[in-house]
Amino acid sequence: MKRIFSLTILVILFCASASAQQALWGGAQITSPEVNSDKTVTFRFQAPDAKEVKLTGDWMPSEGWVPGSELMIKDDKGVWSFTTKPLESDLYGYAFLVDGLRSTDPNNPFLIRDVASVTNVFIVGGGKGDLYSVNDVLHGSVIRRWYDSPSLKKQRRITIYTPPGYESSTDNYPVLYLLHGAGGDEEAWINLGRLSQIMDNLIAQGKAKPMIVVLPNGNVSQSAAPGEGLRGFYKPQFMVPNTMDGNYEASFPDIMKFVESNYRVKTDNANRAIAGLSMGGFHSLHISRYYPNTFDYVGLFSAAILPNQDVSHEVYNDIDGSLEKQMENGYKLYWIGMGKTDFLYKSGEEYRSKLDNMGMKYNYVETDGGHTWTNWRVYLSQFAPMLFK
Amino acid sequence: MKRIFSLTILVILFCASASAQQALWGGAQITSPEVNSDKTVTFRFQAPDAKEVKLTGDWMPSEGWVPGSELMIKDDKGVWSFTTKPLESDLYGYAFLVDGLRSTDPNNPFLIRDVASVTNVFIVGGGKGDLYSVNDVLHGSVIRRWYDSPSLKKQRRITIYTPPGYESSTDNYPVLYLLHGAGGDEEAWINLGRLSQIMDNLIAQGKAKPMIVVLPNGNVSQSAAPGEGLRGFYKPQFMVPNTMDGNYEASFPDIMKFVESNYRVKTDNANRAIAGLSMGGFHSLHISRYYPNTFDYVGLFSAAILPNQDVSHEVYNDIDGSLEKQMENGYKLYWIGMGKTDFLYKSGEEYRSKLDNMGMKYNYVETDGGHTWTNWRVYLSQFAPMLFK
Repeated sequence: MKRIFSLTILVILFCASASAQQALWGGAQITSPEVNSDKTVTFRFQAPDAKEVKLTGDWMPSEGWVPGSELMIKDDKGVWSFTTKPLESDLYGYAFLVDGLRSTDPNNPFLIRDVASVTNVFIVGGGKGDLYSVNDVLHGSVIRRWYDSPSLKKQRRITIYTPPGYESSTDNYPVLYLLHGAGGDEEAWINLGRLSQIMDNLIAQGKAKPMIVVLPNGNVSQSAAPGEGLRGFYKPQFMVPNTMDGNYEASFPDIMKFVESNYRVKTDNANRAIAGLSMGGFHSLHISRYYPNTFDYVGLFSAAILPNQDVSHEVYNDIDGSLEKQMENGYKLYWIGMGKTDFLYKSGEEYRSKLDNMGMKYNYVETDGGHTWTNWRVYLSQFAPMLFK
Repeated sequence: MKRIFSLTILVILFCASASAQQALWGGAQITSPEVNSDKTVTFRFQAPDAKEVKLTGDWMPSEGWVPGSELMIKDDKGVWSFTTKPLESDLYGYAFLVDGLRSTDPNNPFLIRDVASVTNVFIVGGGKGDLYSVNDVLHGSVIRRWYDSPSLKKQRRITIYTPPGYESSTDNYPVLYLLHGAGGDEEAWINLGRLSQIMDNLIAQGKAKPMIVVLPNGNVSQSAAPGEGLRGFYKPQFMVPNTMDGNYEASFPDIMKFVESNYRVKTDNANRAIAGLSMGGFHSLHISRYYPNTFDYVGLFSAAILPNQDVSHEVYNDIDGSLEKQMENGYKLYWIGMGKTDFLYKSGEEYRSKLDNMGMKYNYVETDGGHTWTNWRVYLSQFAPMLFK
């Protein structure tokens, strides 16, 4: 039989294409970032005509709101490079500053969006970064689907993690509702939070019980994450309107009803948890006391605490009374995590003092650092193993 | 009750942060791209100190392998801009060339990875671009999960689209296996192909039957898409080894067995389709004849046709004989799509001539353009409505 098509031709043609693009775009076959065996990390960026290239990364100390940066050094081929000191095992984000302009790394196709910014990422293993990596363990499933929210009168998108074995089992599972912060959406815990990797790994290590994790969208004015809804592609803002005005808390039963009628979940208090970061911590605080006999496990990660004085909604009436009721009804864990340099530290401290005065018990974990995903991944890794035991 | 936390403080602090970042990174609050009402599109990029900024987009005619580009014009605030002529409704990719360096658009957080390149995207509506957009219709679900492949001795990741209503129904559904090209993976049809939007819209319009679409990973050496598997984050190559050596076709029953035992799918030939682009067209050609009484619907989108002469595998023995058998067994649709300027045009022409000589019937659609996702989205939009009728 005549050989019509040869694979070789395909390869040659595509190499020619890649080569032409390199010539035009200045992208040599260089590796960046390169995580070295001693946990230093080398970054490379080809820009023969640039006058100055800096590296900025979220592990560098910032001065106030200005992120830290390091000068890179150019070699005789026009490739700028910089090697860090050994970095602690974690997931990191970085960018280049090319003659003052922020640039993504053309040699690293892995980026994560946070609100309207897109940042390259990498993982340094050998510690907690391993928990954020895909390992050779059984994997759960991640489902993006839409549910009907009668309270908000719209279809809304939701992301759901089911643990390994869920599909082939007939058991009912406990459920964690895990909420994002301001500027986030139903994608945040998956992309920035490495939720499915953390859960797969904790479950494989026997540290966390197999559970379903529900990641709703906490912005009542949105049907879905930016780019995934009716507005199409648009530049998202940090503060979505109407996120902390009571309507999310009031509509939360729509989400629970959807989950409980579509997934094999246990529906008693002892098998329901709610937690969230920043605005999601605010939502978790108020949902857990507004529906006081619902969640035996509550997690407040760097939480915003009380509503703005201008907000009036029945959800926020008699906060003290409903906390008292929550305390009387009993629960198994009220977990609070906060970074030492978080700008919400003081309001968190005052809230804990309030709980102390009421005699309402909680677990408190204080970490270095501030209002960051670095901390929220750690809080999840500590919180999830304490659930449903 | 004392108001500990005020939302206003949160907003002020984050605005301060955003402002500091802008000062450092030069990112003003500008909109780019802006799709204007006359379907022209305006791009903006702030770079006061750049000497030359160009826009390159996949709608521009290329010269050989060099993509077209247009000079942008700088205003007195250092913002470079360019407005296109009216563009046909479609999904487009673009980048900036800043003093010769390729740059993503810092004002557009929507990017799609293709092999190792990440490109900003936008949609011009009012035509076929509407089919690639999220519209106010019922939405299917997209599931990322892992299955066991005994033939390949590993867990592998797979993406599955289930149509609106699947979860609440008890019906069995027809199934389309839709395969990616070289350099792609189980994410390609979702991200570059806009599979879930196209299917949601075609089903809502009554043009396509509700069906399950299975998106496997066609690279037998990979467990998952780059970044989603055990190798972690790495820079992917265009040609993954061992992609067209017979092992994928030979292991394909693992995928079908997983789907048929985990989803409510019809299991007769009349309710099974297989299609793919480029290398995935090659896989579809060979799978559909190697298992000749399995698929009543076959789609070859810009397909690579025959194996490299150096490849020896029983899958590729007696190609003519198995095609004869496929023809004798009968099928409902053998659909071939090819772009006029595709570098695989000639091999496709020779394959059609071979089918003509055998008397093997097929439908043929020829489009403008070449080996592009622009064409593959069109082919899917034409092929899916012809299935299972």
